[in-house]
Amino acid sequence: MTISAILKDIDNYIHENVDDFIHELARLCGQPSVSATGMGIHECAHLVNDMLAAHGYNSEIIRTKGNPVVFGRQNGHSDKTLLFYLHYDVQPPEPMDAWESPPFELSRRGENLYARGVVDDKGHIVARLAGLAAVRHVMGDLPCNVKFVIEGEEELGSPNISPFIEDNKEKLSADACIWEFGGVNHEGSPTLSLGMRGILYVELIAKTASIDAHSGLGGSIFPNAAWRLVWALQSIKDLDERINIAGFYDNVRLPSKRDLEILANLPDDGAQLREMYGLDHFLHGLKGGTELKKAAVFEPSCTICGFGSGYQGPGSKTVIPAEARAKVDFRLVPDQDPDEILKKLRQHLDSTGFDDIEIQYNGGTRPARTDPDHPFVQLTIDAANKVYRRDTVVAPIIGGSGPNYPFIHSLKLPVVSAGVGYPGGNIHAPNEHLRINDFVQGIRHTAYIVEAFSRTD
Amino acid sequence: MTISAILKDIDNYIHENVDDFIHELARLCGQPSVSATGMGIHECAHLVNDMLAAHGYNSEIIRTKGNPVVFGRQNGHSDKTLLFYLHYDVQPPEPMDAWESPPFELSRRGENLYARGVVDDKGHIVARLAGLAAVRHVMGDLPCNVKFVIEGEEELGSPNISPFIEDNKEKLSADACIWEFGGVNHEGSPTLSLGMRGILYVELIAKTASIDAHSGLGGSIFPNAAWRLVWALQSIKDLDERINIAGFYDNVRLPSKRDLEILANLPDDGAQLREMYGLDHFLHGLKGGTELKKAAVFEPSCTICGFGSGYQGPGSKTVIPAEARAKVDFRLVPDQDPDEILKKLRQHLDSTGFDDIEIQYNGGTRPARTDPDHPFVQLTIDAANKVYRRDTVVAPIIGGSGPNYPFIHSLKLPVVSAGVGYPGGNIHAPNEHLRINDFVQGIRHTAYIVEAFSRTD
Repeated sequence: MTISAILKDIDNYIHENVDDFIHELARLCGQPSVSATGMGIHECAHLVNDMLAAHGYNSEIIRTKGNPVVFGRQNGHSDKTLLFYLHYDVQPPEPMDAWESPPFELSRRGENLYARGVVDDKGHIVARLAGLAAVRHVMGDLPCNVKFVIEGEEELGSPNISPFIEDNKEKLSADACIWEFGGVNHEGSPTLSLGMRGILYVELIAKTASIDAHSGLGGSIFPNAAWRLVWALQSIKDLDERINIAGFYDNVRLPSKRDLEILANLPDDGAQLREMYGLDHFLHGLKGGTELKKAAVFEPSCTICGFGSGYQGPGSKTVIPAEARAKVDFRLVPDQDPDEILKKLRQHLDSTGFDDIEIQYNGGTRPARTDPDHPFVQLTIDAANKVYRRDTVVAPIIGGSGPNYPFIHSLKLPVVSAGVGYPGGNIHAPNEHLRINDFVQGIRHTAYIVEAFSRTD
Repeated sequence: MTISAILKDIDNYIHENVDDFIHELARLCGQPSVSATGMGIHECAHLVNDMLAAHGYNSEIIRTKGNPVVFGRQNGHSDKTLLFYLHYDVQPPEPMDAWESPPFELSRRGENLYARGVVDDKGHIVARLAGLAAVRHVMGDLPCNVKFVIEGEEELGSPNISPFIEDNKEKLSADACIWEFGGVNHEGSPTLSLGMRGILYVELIAKTASIDAHSGLGGSIFPNAAWRLVWALQSIKDLDERINIAGFYDNVRLPSKRDLEILANLPDDGAQLREMYGLDHFLHGLKGGTELKKAAVFEPSCTICGFGSGYQGPGSKTVIPAEARAKVDFRLVPDQDPDEILKKLRQHLDSTGFDDIEIQYNGGTRPARTDPDHPFVQLTIDAANKVYRRDTVVAPIIGGSGPNYPFIHSLKLPVVSAGVGYPGGNIHAPNEHLRINDFVQGIRHTAYIVEAFSRTD
């Protein structure tokens, strides 16, 4: 068979079996798996394990210090191994009121499928399995070895994936990796991404008293936890948006000329972002273009994700809060290290008079990138161009974070993200949904990648 | 009858009827009246009106733009008029879990009575009525005219009491006023207070987007409402505790030599405060003594009473908050004016680059004081000395706030606070309680004041 005949047969198989794939996705979405609360996690790990087995994978549930990892493998004709990283846990569904249909029940409305996790990441799990099933159906067997690592703590920041990988390096050995997300951009072009910023997530806690006090009594003489926290936060980042932690920028690697070329080719989504989020302006006077794209992903950031203290109800209450808390994330770029930044943050607070501020560590992952000139990157681009019949967009690194570091630096794999999402899909929000066409294209893209990958040297 | 015979009969009457007074208090506390939510407000106004009528007062419910005021009057033998200011509304009972008995059900445990409002301010309402009933019983009739102004919005900052007073100046005319709170201090000494700081209560609101965004997407390029608010707050007050609003201190009147003398005679409660609230230290390196007392009441303050933004739940959520809010109170000293401070706050934010920060005005009252050398002050001190058989403590001004300004400056009354509370009574907190002995002493003090007042020229 010629390659084009194979791909045509793959396409036919996929189109004939879409309802079955949706049925499989419905089964998976019907099983809650909220890592934030633990709801349904173990049941879901078993379900995924069963699904892999039903697809002919040698599958097992591997314990970690946290939620288990489902690992599956199936050998093929070539000695090349493609590894798929995915996760079976989902974000909490709250706020429940905002859902138009129950979050743990797949609901089709028009050409969209609604459920918590229908994109992130259960749609990807099923799309990988479906694409591989199509290849196997057409080619009689898998043309290369395939491995699945499907973890259950991605939505918690993957706290146990690095040790899992260190403990299972041989088992996980592979030649390339397809990451857990991706899809099309605002314009409908397939978008691949090659890296992620790291993250350090902390909670800063000020405590100044054992109980709240009346502001009339102590407003002029009692310390106030909310003020302490305001001042501590301000010491970390001021109006100029520069992060004032000594040594914070030490290991920041500037984007290369090649990176900037690639960025320049990315569509300018400044206008869409401003509209979508109702923004007056971007920081640093940025308007759009390559400078905006560069700042978004090649510069580290410090975000207050939330804070709370004292009375927040309706009307007035005159109270001096005994405690105040802020959730803060630092997005890190290569080669920053969250452990090092955590130490520098502690040193910063201690040396600026805020040794009373407690730091609670909520998680961290390191930034990592795949070389845009790696041949596997070109392979996935070529496959996407064929599937989507549009020019594929490549992001050298994206602003978000994930545990790609040990895959890139410990397993030494090129890692490319490609998937079934689109920017309006409400992942992490109510009414998360998957467009059926994106699902089909993602299945095809998986199959085309596998077919091409099996032919590499 | 001699004065001492009258007072003895008053005491006997009070001691014989304590159970009835407690019963009356139970009835009043059983009626919720939460001005923050409106719960039971109108029912409570009617109940208070009925209670005044049952005590022989000519009573009426007077509408305001907010909750109604209950006004009662009863004429006596002299042409002197004593006015009692009180309030029938209470603080919200939340958090409900922390109550050992239902907040709207008077519960006696040992020598304490528990209920929301049992001290603040329903215990005072009943104590005034009981003391007056005792005087009337013994003397056959009231020896002077008595008026009651019992409002329903004190816990909201009394937004409508000033216009109410302006509209009813003749009706409210009097010669002196007993205020709604008071009691004994840590050492059990009766404590009278002669003034209150003013207050300006605002909510500061930052809005930077129409919806929250993912911090991975926009952490480096999107404005963040939580950061805006942190910086705006820091611009108002920095680590040195100095309020940086231009002109904020313009009208601050320093305490007189006489004020400082009075302060020096007040007990030093620094150690108790530190223990009670679990404080490491006081601000400005203060340790106690007259300097601490002076700072507590004669210096204005700026308190963050609460703030909130973004994600405050368990674990991590990586979000750029679209909105952030802080509740802030400014305690003001004579002759600061909340309206003027509000204007200066707006000017401050505008001139320091924070014109995007919205100010929501939640209320304000002006500071006001009664001259410590006014004869009515000495009268209430003498009465307290007789009742409590201990030296009475007089505070020239306290740190808290209330609507005494129009009583002092518009009705031209000397205003003295005296009452039934004690520092451990948890007013505004769960398990608010009244010690029965304090209740009895407060009733006696009311009666003794009325008896003495009727004999003034």
